[in-house]
Order: sequence, then structure tokens, then C-alpha cells
Amino acid sequence: MSAILNKVTIIGVGLIGGSFAKGIKQAGLVEEVIGFGHNDANLQLAVELGVIDSFTTDMAEAVDGSDLVFLAVPLGAMKTVLAEMKPYLSSKTIITDGGSAKSSVILSAQEVFGELPENFVPGHPIAGKEKSGVAAADEALYVNHRVILTPTEKTALSALAVVKQLWLALGANVEVMNAQQHDEIFAATSHLPHLLAFALVDMLNEHEELGDVFKYTAGGFRDFTRIASSDAVMWRDIVMYNSTAIAKWLKYYGQAITELTELVENKDAQALYTLFDEAKKARDKHIVQK
Amino acid sequence: MSAILNKVTIIGVGLIGGSFAKGIKQAGLVEEVIGFGHNDANLQLAVELGVIDSFTTDMAEAVDGSDLVFLAVPLGAMKTVLAEMKPYLSSKTIITDGGSAKSSVILSAQEVFGELPENFVPGHPIAGKEKSGVAAADEALYVNHRVILTPTEKTALSALAVVKQLWLALGANVEVMNAQQHDEIFAATSHLPHLLAFALVDMLNEHEELGDVFKYTAGGFRDFTRIASSDAVMWRDIVMYNSTAIAKWLKYYGQAITELTELVENKDAQALYTLFDEAKKARDKHIVQK
Repeated sequence: MSAILNKVTIIGVGLIGGSFAKGIKQAGLVEEVIGFGHNDANLQLAVELGVIDSFTTDMAEAVDGSDLVFLAVPLGAMKTVLAEMKPYLSSKTIITDGGSAKSSVILSAQEVFGELPENFVPGHPIAGKEKSGVAAADEALYVNHRVILTPTEKTALSALAVVKQLWLALGANVEVMNAQQHDEIFAATSHLPHLLAFALVDMLNEHEELGDVFKYTAGGFRDFTRIASSDAVMWRDIVMYNSTAIAKWLKYYGQAITELTELVENKDAQALYTLFDEAKKARDKHIVQK
Repeated sequence: MSAILNKVTIIGVGLIGGSFAKGIKQAGLVEEVIGFGHNDANLQLAVELGVIDSFTTDMAEAVDGSDLVFLAVPLGAMKTVLAEMKPYLSSKTIITDGGSAKSSVILSAQEVFGELPENFVPGHPIAGKEKSGVAAADEALYVNHRVILTPTEKTALSALAVVKQLWLALGANVEVMNAQQHDEIFAATSHLPHLLAFALVDMLNEHEELGDVFKYTAGGFRDFTRIASSDAVMWRDIVMYNSTAIAKWLKYYGQAITELTELVENKDAQALYTLFDEAKKARDKHIVQK
């Protein structure tokens, strides 16, 4: 492929930003990828690994003349970074991000810029690895993974098209939806399960009368609670920045647990069977085993 | 090893019973293993696979002169099978089982025999496979897996010792505890997570406004809900036969979800961080990654 952008800026060169950078560089879609961050050693490593071409810790230098800025920072840092780059941004620069909650990033942009920039294309790549950090950056991270783009009412179709083209070149499956829909879906399918797993491990840990209860757990428990080994800071931020949708789904789930408890107390064999059977069928139908 | 038992009877020759049979045969601990069931073809296959030596569909023949009977039938069938074998059982025959709830099996024995037999050794091997049935029977299934034995007040130490010796010979780690403790621990660590996973999949499946929501799920969701693909009949039975302990832990969990919902609604970042961090630390400390 031939380059479609001259300068791309990566704000936050870790697993997500680094994999994006490495991928678009290797695909030949960009002349120059510059990384911005606060950790010289990390940025130097990124250059050595071929993830970025150069780096800076100066925001003016980072975004000056940039065609596209990719914000790959924690949700809690989005607003600060947007405010920091605002003085140096050209109105032509496309801004996109990788945050796993979208309404909050859009609200931050609204607050920082006064009105939503035309070239702002919020996004969420659904990809991760057990390892994090730039050393784990992988140009193939997004292959066959879903990337959700959530353009605002103001987003220019041309900017959306460019961001989409980059993700497609990385092998991702790109979908477009509105931010609220995104936040609802991921509250239900990702944020909620994480909270449920954290809550279960905490509960077992706190009930000391169970003794050393974890030693009796088997593979099912290990799988069920794997996501409870996720980073606590990241998940605190996700909850803070998608709290409305998450609270809603937690309440629905709490109701489901109340109803299930009644079925168990009433020993309603038929209703329990139906519930389990429908869940099993739905999962077996929809979830490809890997 | 030399044989310590002449005749062992396996009631229900599937994965659990078949793996036990194959293991003690290969270890040379028993002269003869006879399988009992209702499906000739299945029992014939078990003989061909070397899982059992012979089979019968006649209960009198199955248990007559047997040194040890292993009940590897669903929890819902335990009482019926005990009643069916009662007329043919010698008081010397050791009775053990593989049910995943223990108080209910003990209650069934109490009801069938009037008083608890001295040679009754309730047990629960914590092992399974994705495949079920006798074709999946594997003499190594229990190697390094935990087997919980829950002797009653009446259980003779000699009977407990024999059952323990068999499991140890299969490579299992044997632990002894009382049935109520067992049922509490497994309600909390196994039965509860299964119900939570079933409930989540059902909830997402029923909220049609989410659309084809499962397509947005990733590896975390796949792991978290893997146990929701478990057999609905088996889990209905487990809930029916351990309902008291399960209802108790469901209520505790429901309270935990209510408290968590409040933290989310109040955007209590510090409390959320603490909860996630403690869960992560507890899991990372206790659960060996595989």
C-alpha cells in the first residue's frame, strides 16, 4: 500500500497504541509515526522495536502538522490530553482514540473544544493481550478483531473514512454505531462480567468461615474468574467513565439473581432447567469455542 | 499393587464411573469390576474399551457378593438406585458415590436404609472433562485432582480407609470433611459461579434491545461464560439437591451486587479500586494459572 498520511501521532505508546503504530507503519500507510509520552525509556524502546519512527515528550512537537492523532491513554487521562494538545492542533488533524467507553470521551472533547471537532472519530478496538506495554506491541493484534467507531453528529465522513481505512488495513473488522449504543453493549457484555467476577472473588475471600476456599476451585472457577485478575486501575476508570450504563446492567443482573434465588428456594426444577437450557443453547449458538 | 478387593460394582458406567473402574483395574487393586446400567450397548462398549470386566442389567447380580459399590449416577437417581440395591446388599459391602452434593445423598441413604450404613462412604471427585460418556473414560482422569470424602457419624474407619486407598491409587489428592462443609464450599465455589454464568447469558439473550449482542463479546466473556455451556439437567439436579447452601450464597452474592451497584452509582473511585485490587490480589495469590 502507498502512504495515505504523512505524520501520525501516537499519544501513549503501550500495547494498544504501539500495535496500531507498528501495524500502520508495516502496512506502509504512513510516512512517519511519532510517539508522545512522558517516559523516555519506554519511548526509546518503542523506536528500537520499530513500533514508532521517533518520539517526543513535547506536545507541540508531537501534534504539529500531524494528519492523525491516536489517543491510546487510559480513560482517566483523555480529557487532560485533549486539553494539552488543543493549542497545537490544526483543524485538519484527525483525532481518534482507543478508549473502551465512548460517551465520556465525547463529553470530554465537547468540554475541551467547546464544540465537537469535525475530525474527531471516537473508536474502540476490542483487543487485548495478557501482556501489556510496548514490548508486547504486535502489528497483528487487531487481525480479525472488532473495532467499533462511534462518530458524533459532527464527525466528517472523510475523517471517518480515513480512520476506517487504517483499521481495515490492520485486519480489523470495523463497525460503526453511536456512542450510547456502544456503551450499553459493552457495559452488558464486558464491564458487567468483569464486575461480577471481581465481586465473586472478593466475596469468597472475605467469608473466612469457608477457610482456604480457593484450593477447592477447579477449571470452571479459574475460567470464570480470569477477568478478576485484570488491572484494578483500568477497571476503576472504566466504571467511572461508563457508570450510568454499568449501574443499569448491574441492576438488571441483581434482579435476575433475586429471581433465580427464588427459583432455588422454591426448588422449581422446571424453571431452573429452562433457564439453564436456554442459556446453554444461546451460548453454544453464539460463542465460537476457542 | 496386589488386589485388595475381589468384586467392585460400578453403578453407572460413564466418564466418572468408567474412569474410576479403568483406574482401579489398571492399578491391579481389584480382581473383577462389573458394570451395572440400563444400556446394553454402552456397557458392551465399556467392556470392549477395557473399562470394566463384565456387565449386567440385573441389580441382584450386580451387587451380590460385591466388596464395593460405586454409585456414579446423577444426583437425581441416587435414592432410587440405593432402594433398588438394598435387598441384595451385604452389610459388608462398602458403598461409595461420586455425587457433587453430599448432604442429599446421605439423607437418601438414611431414608432408604432406616439408619446410615456403617460401610457408606460418601465422596466427590472434583474432576471432569469436556467430553462425557464411557468413551471418554480415562484412568488418569483423577491424577492430581481432589477427591472429597464426607464420612457420616456412622461410617466405619475401615470402610473410609479402603475408599481412600482406591482414590490415592488413582493419583487423587484425598481430603476428608463433613458433608455440610463440603456442600457450603462447593455451593460457593462451583454451584454459585455456574448459576451466575447461566444468569448472565440468559439476561443478555432476553434483552432484545441489545441486538445480536454476543457478536461483540471477546475472550473474557467466552471464559467467563464457559460454564454456562454445561449440561442443564445435571445443573438442575445439583441445584435441587444442594438448594439450601446455594440459596444462601446466592443471597450473599445478591447483597454484594447491591453494594457494588451503589459504589458505581456514587462513582466511589477509591472503594471500587480497593474492591478490584483485593479481588485481583486474592485471585493471583490463590489460583494457579493454567
